[in-house]
Amino acid sequence: MTVTELGIRAKATQSFLSTVTTQQKNDALLAIADMLEEKSADIIKANSLDIENGKKSGLSDGLLDRLMLNQGRIAGIADGVRQVAALPDACGKTVYEYEKENGLKIKKITVPIGVIGIIYEARPNVTADAAALCLKSGNAVILRGGKEAVNSNKAIADIMRKAIASTGFPEDVIQLVEDTSRASANEMMTLNAYLDCLIPRGGKGLIRAVVENSTVPVIETGSGNCHIYVDESADTDMAANIIFNAKTQRISVCNACESLVIHSAVIAEALPKIKAQLDKANTEIRGDGRARAVCPDIAEATEEDFYTEYLDYIISVKTVDSLDEAIAHINEHSTRHSEAIITKNEQNAERFLQCIDSSSVYVNASTRFTDGCEFGLGAEIGISTQKLHARGPMGLEQLTSTKYIIIGNGQVRE
Amino acid sequence: MTVTELGIRAKATQSFLSTVTTQQKNDALLAIADMLEEKSADIIKANSLDIENGKKSGLSDGLLDRLMLNQGRIAGIADGVRQVAALPDACGKTVYEYEKENGLKIKKITVPIGVIGIIYEARPNVTADAAALCLKSGNAVILRGGKEAVNSNKAIADIMRKAIASTGFPEDVIQLVEDTSRASANEMMTLNAYLDCLIPRGGKGLIRAVVENSTVPVIETGSGNCHIYVDESADTDMAANIIFNAKTQRISVCNACESLVIHSAVIAEALPKIKAQLDKANTEIRGDGRARAVCPDIAEATEEDFYTEYLDYIISVKTVDSLDEAIAHINEHSTRHSEAIITKNEQNAERFLQCIDSSSVYVNASTRFTDGCEFGLGAEIGISTQKLHARGPMGLEQLTSTKYIIIGNGQVRE
Repeated sequence: MTVTELGIRAKATQSFLSTVTTQQKNDALLAIADMLEEKSADIIKANSLDIENGKKSGLSDGLLDRLMLNQGRIAGIADGVRQVAALPDACGKTVYEYEKENGLKIKKITVPIGVIGIIYEARPNVTADAAALCLKSGNAVILRGGKEAVNSNKAIADIMRKAIASTGFPEDVIQLVEDTSRASANEMMTLNAYLDCLIPRGGKGLIRAVVENSTVPVIETGSGNCHIYVDESADTDMAANIIFNAKTQRISVCNACESLVIHSAVIAEALPKIKAQLDKANTEIRGDGRARAVCPDIAEATEEDFYTEYLDYIISVKTVDSLDEAIAHINEHSTRHSEAIITKNEQNAERFLQCIDSSSVYVNASTRFTDGCEFGLGAEIGISTQKLHARGPMGLEQLTSTKYIIIGNGQVRE
Repeated sequence: MTVTELGIRAKATQSFLSTVTTQQKNDALLAIADMLEEKSADIIKANSLDIENGKKSGLSDGLLDRLMLNQGRIAGIADGVRQVAALPDACGKTVYEYEKENGLKIKKITVPIGVIGIIYEARPNVTADAAALCLKSGNAVILRGGKEAVNSNKAIADIMRKAIASTGFPEDVIQLVEDTSRASANEMMTLNAYLDCLIPRGGKGLIRAVVENSTVPVIETGSGNCHIYVDESADTDMAANIIFNAKTQRISVCNACESLVIHSAVIAEALPKIKAQLDKANTEIRGDGRARAVCPDIAEATEEDFYTEYLDYIISVKTVDSLDEAIAHINEHSTRHSEAIITKNEQNAERFLQCIDSSSVYVNASTRFTDGCEFGLGAEIGISTQKLHARGPMGLEQLTSTKYIIIGNGQVRE
């Protein structure tokens, strides 16, 4: 089936979805969770094909691990779907009310966005996670995963479609693009007639391609060149501890710290402590001249380093002479994801919070907390690094739009 | 100056704008209003050049009228700016709060979007209106008006820049693109490094060009193929009255009614009443076969008519046999702007409100109310017909983004 045909089918589910109840949505989600577990053997069988193909085509061990599904991981996916069922419904909330003198009653309520497209890469768990969040927010979804996981994705999508159909849902509320060619991605990016929104999830190349080529409105997610600034008045032990966590607790994620900015007045005290911690995880430090004057055995950082999201055991260090220089450096080099200041000075903390132009700005804490679950949203479909519609971790609320409803008894405009 | 240079200058105002207070913004707005009135002679002189050029190039009387500025109109523009100053500040509001068990305090607050680009057509009042709303919401703005109003726009922008500078603002918070060529518009559409958002205001061609060619996130505004559905149980006198208002009170606006959908059970009673009203304003009716069977002297509607936003004294009529047929017809043909049902049946009203996929859905009232001021927003920068970020009339709140701020005392992720 072409992507356009999938779009037409998704649109056809809108009349059902516009009157669906919370109970119906939860029943469908619980049916998905149960059937994923019941039919886990089918999923594992399909997944083993992907793993076999992946080995043949030389996927790295890391990628093969992300691709692999077993009983335990499938149970985890099913539990994630049950957690989404347990979340409060984000649709139907009144967010604005106004009554005119002529008696006209105006209300703004949250409604589903409509049809959401998700373009993503290797991990097959996204297939179920994203579908569950879209369903709970009353949206139809068109999923297009990567070719590496196509068999796993097909198996998961088939099961989800059967499960929701068993509870009275049109199965086309969840659809998978089985054609993983570039052409199918391009077709999605210009499917304005049927797609209300497109969310890319994956590496920098994928996200850039979608932002540049899509005429469908896009929610840009993800890349994170995250900074931690060690202020003049920082508790340097706290700084070293937070930096160690933010850099090394999980290196492959977008909220990991990639770059340090250190005030010159404190670098002689702070950097050796930071280095001692990072050495425990064999992390390479690349610093500017003043950082290397303090720790001569660290490598030299180029301007390119300061723009790089390493996703590896590497971190860059920039030395500054003031808070404002730190802010300017960060706003120039960051991807507007997550940045932190370590300071005892409340005024400096406040200025950092105001002036740093990022989705999530921290005082004295690790950037690793930028995550829908950690922020209390229950789940997340991604982390937006753009400013329109959604910014930072996106939960169910960010998968809704709004609608004005206006009740009159014959009012006309004078 | 090139558009890119304007972008660099706009970005340079961000450190000022990220700490600006409500009082400072209001002072700047009041200075603008006062100086527009003081220097109205300069504006009128520049405007007379545009009028002269417009006459030479054969602009219609309607367009010349929209272009023309006089003392009264300038006073109106200044009053509009003062009204924006009087509105509550939309920035700095806490929209979400969460405290983790580890003591981490997470808050989501409203912040300016950053740098907003506005591409618009003939009316020079947009120059001041849009700049005032962007300034009040803490954004820098890059304005690109049409060539017909370039002299008026330059005069107004110059005055606004001087006025805000007199209150301590960087004048580059407000900038005008003086080059009105297609090239400058194209440069704006791909200025992702400096523009956070682009809002086109104008005709269908302009909006389509921006949506199709922009890589900067766009808020689509405007076109309105608005429907009124006359239900089986409608009060037909009320219907005729509302339709007369929605069609003829002002024909050139996006919330005017362009198409009627009438239940077959009531068309014999309703259509003659509606026609009698519309005849008073010499409005042409184009109907389907069953409408023409009731009123033989009306013209025949083609399928194209049902997709047409006339912006004229013309209206189309479609006959249906059920509420659901009406909903399907409207969702297929509308531009998702404003639609109304005229009915005495509460269940039908509820179903119409739920199933019609438009920004503003009415029961027993004229579609002409879709407007920021009428909806109590105080002012509007446009009416969004898309679903992401903003939908329907957009006020100050829709010119803000959000940011998470997270306060800790050394927390790291386990």
